[in-house]
Amino acid sequence: MPGTFSVGLLGHGTVGSAFAALLEERAEAIAPITGLRPQLSGVLTRSQGDFEEILARSDLIVELIGGVEPARDYVLRAMRAGKHVVSANKLLLSQHGEELWACAREHGVQLRFEAAVAGVVPVIRVLQESLAAAHVERIHGIVNGTTNYILTEMARGGLSYEAALAQAQELGYAEADPTDDVTGRDAAAKMAILARLAFDTPVHLDQVRYEGIEHITPDDIAYAQQLGLGLKLIGTAERVDAGLSVRVHPAFLYGGHPLASVNGPFNAVTVESDAITEITMSGPGAGGPQTASAVLGDVISAMIPPATTPETTQRLEIVNDIESAFYLHMEVADRPGVLAQVAELLGMQGGSIKSVVQRGLGDNASLVMVLHPLLESRFYGAMQLIGRLDFMRSAPRAIRVIEEEFV
Amino acid sequence: MPGTFSVGLLGHGTVGSAFAALLEERAEAIAPITGLRPQLSGVLTRSQGDFEEILARSDLIVELIGGVEPARDYVLRAMRAGKHVVSANKLLLSQHGEELWACAREHGVQLRFEAAVAGVVPVIRVLQESLAAAHVERIHGIVNGTTNYILTEMARGGLSYEAALAQAQELGYAEADPTDDVTGRDAAAKMAILARLAFDTPVHLDQVRYEGIEHITPDDIAYAQQLGLGLKLIGTAERVDAGLSVRVHPAFLYGGHPLASVNGPFNAVTVESDAITEITMSGPGAGGPQTASAVLGDVISAMIPPATTPETTQRLEIVNDIESAFYLHMEVADRPGVLAQVAELLGMQGGSIKSVVQRGLGDNASLVMVLHPLLESRFYGAMQLIGRLDFMRSAPRAIRVIEEEFV
Repeated sequence: MPGTFSVGLLGHGTVGSAFAALLEERAEAIAPITGLRPQLSGVLTRSQGDFEEILARSDLIVELIGGVEPARDYVLRAMRAGKHVVSANKLLLSQHGEELWACAREHGVQLRFEAAVAGVVPVIRVLQESLAAAHVERIHGIVNGTTNYILTEMARGGLSYEAALAQAQELGYAEADPTDDVTGRDAAAKMAILARLAFDTPVHLDQVRYEGIEHITPDDIAYAQQLGLGLKLIGTAERVDAGLSVRVHPAFLYGGHPLASVNGPFNAVTVESDAITEITMSGPGAGGPQTASAVLGDVISAMIPPATTPETTQRLEIVNDIESAFYLHMEVADRPGVLAQVAELLGMQGGSIKSVVQRGLGDNASLVMVLHPLLESRFYGAMQLIGRLDFMRSAPRAIRVIEEEFV
Repeated sequence: MPGTFSVGLLGHGTVGSAFAALLEERAEAIAPITGLRPQLSGVLTRSQGDFEEILARSDLIVELIGGVEPARDYVLRAMRAGKHVVSANKLLLSQHGEELWACAREHGVQLRFEAAVAGVVPVIRVLQESLAAAHVERIHGIVNGTTNYILTEMARGGLSYEAALAQAQELGYAEADPTDDVTGRDAAAKMAILARLAFDTPVHLDQVRYEGIEHITPDDIAYAQQLGLGLKLIGTAERVDAGLSVRVHPAFLYGGHPLASVNGPFNAVTVESDAITEITMSGPGAGGPQTASAVLGDVISAMIPPATTPETTQRLEIVNDIESAFYLHMEVADRPGVLAQVAELLGMQGGSIKSVVQRGLGDNASLVMVLHPLLESRFYGAMQLIGRLDFMRSAPRAIRVIEEEFV
């Protein structure tokens, strides 16, 4: 029977309530990893709960109230009381980070903040751990999902900035007051934090130059597409001579850039260094459950450094016959009824055609199709029968298709 | 003056020698992070060094000899002697992982293996730490750079499999005997390790179904492009009913899939889970310095869990005026000499034109160009002068361009 680990929660908005639910749902799975079962010791909201009471019965405080005060005061008091802190507060860390990190070091507690930048994309952990000793040359990031959604819609539908913003607000990707997002200030706070970690130098939000996307026209996006360019709101932190440039502004990217294909409300960060070339991480940049998942990862890390690979607790059966979609290529003599006979044999095994391309004439036709998913054993059964049809000019060829179409 | 942390190195091939060089280069930067200065205590190669002697004077053993024996024996003996181990050995871990992880737990030492899967792409750490308690639904990975390079070249140049393989061998992306790579076995070993971590269930290499790319024709790739599909060698681990399917095979992806734009020798892994939607990590999957960098990240983590954000040791100047490439959009009256005058004003500030699009006629022409990088202050100076030219119909608009074109 594992002991318990008490987590005090400050804030119960979208992320806070998602975190409370996730903690309860995953407590059982966390116990074998950490040796302790996490549980909520109290929740502080604007209208209820007492900070000192919650602090007294917590091993760790999760700060999800946002803004500078009283968040700063609570975080400092928690660490001075010897409690670990997990925070998602980019404004706080980009303006008072050095004070808070110094306090954590002084009191020997952990201050973790994965969710403050790019939600569940593990960029903080990777910079602090995997790349702890890397000589980073540059970071490029799409670290604001609201503006990336707006720019994606402007590019795709030719929408004006105003129309795309209204659509983002309707779908919950932008707040009623979107100022911090669209002016680049939110992204600037995140870039200050990333630059501080990557370049081992203090960086304050006020030192980050930022420009927003309010002046972008669909016209510019359309022209630039002809030049092979796509538009993103890009945060950059890079060495310049012996100094450091940290900035956020709209920028065009060529199609092959790792950030060029990051669309909709997603975030992504590319870290460049001679030793590693570059690595890119992408995923949802916001959303209650996603951000809560990043917070939970931090809580688990604070509970125990995962120095070992725990014994497995599952014994899942390893399955061999699964459902797959298939591409099927046939060289056929082009007679009436060819497609119908193939379709019939497939249909007998539960297969159906999603798309088809036919090319050539007479004895040299190619019939190429993509099938909806079916059990692989049944597909290969059908393919064997198809291979015996008298109009087949060579053995049919099959390759699996991964069906998901992403944004 | 920090104490020292002694690292014994087994193997001195491409990755081993890159690691030895990197450790020396970064030792100074590692000391403030960990409180200890790492140093090489000995190197074991086929022809020199004694394992027991090296072990006796090491705090940690880095195993880069590859293959199952004697690597397994060395790793077990190191852990039984109470030493941490960092290994890049996918064949060993995919076949004897449970024995090795049990030994690590029993002796209270760390066994880290980031470099065993996808090189410097931090997928092991993210699965073990960020996603420790996530209920993972599926992993898709491009975890073999050789085959991804071959398929990329087949798609791009219409090369046959044989020609693309020969080209990969010439460039060092494929070994003289490419069997493990092209048959999918290398990828299968990596997927066994990822599946074990993500699904908390034992997975042995022998349980992974795999197919290679030897039978792929450029013809199939070309047809599928018409259907919007691109071909990759995909490793998959996913829940199927109450079981688990782990497999590697060529598969087509639609253009929007996060793995569709991973080209050349790069690796990438997408982890899907309800709570996180999905995250994707990509980067170079092999290469001496890159893999060595992943090994070093593990060594640092084993030296001390980075529970705190260390005090900064740099005081880099925050630079404001930097060089940028620009997109410049002008509405002009289309008279002779317009482009020449714009080019002259830009040239006086050190700007030069990379590409240009002109559209429309008479008083309604648009002149759109992309400039090579120049100092931002000088660009904006030129833009002010350009705005005063008598043929300008409205204020010129500028947006920065990030120039790098990736594979």
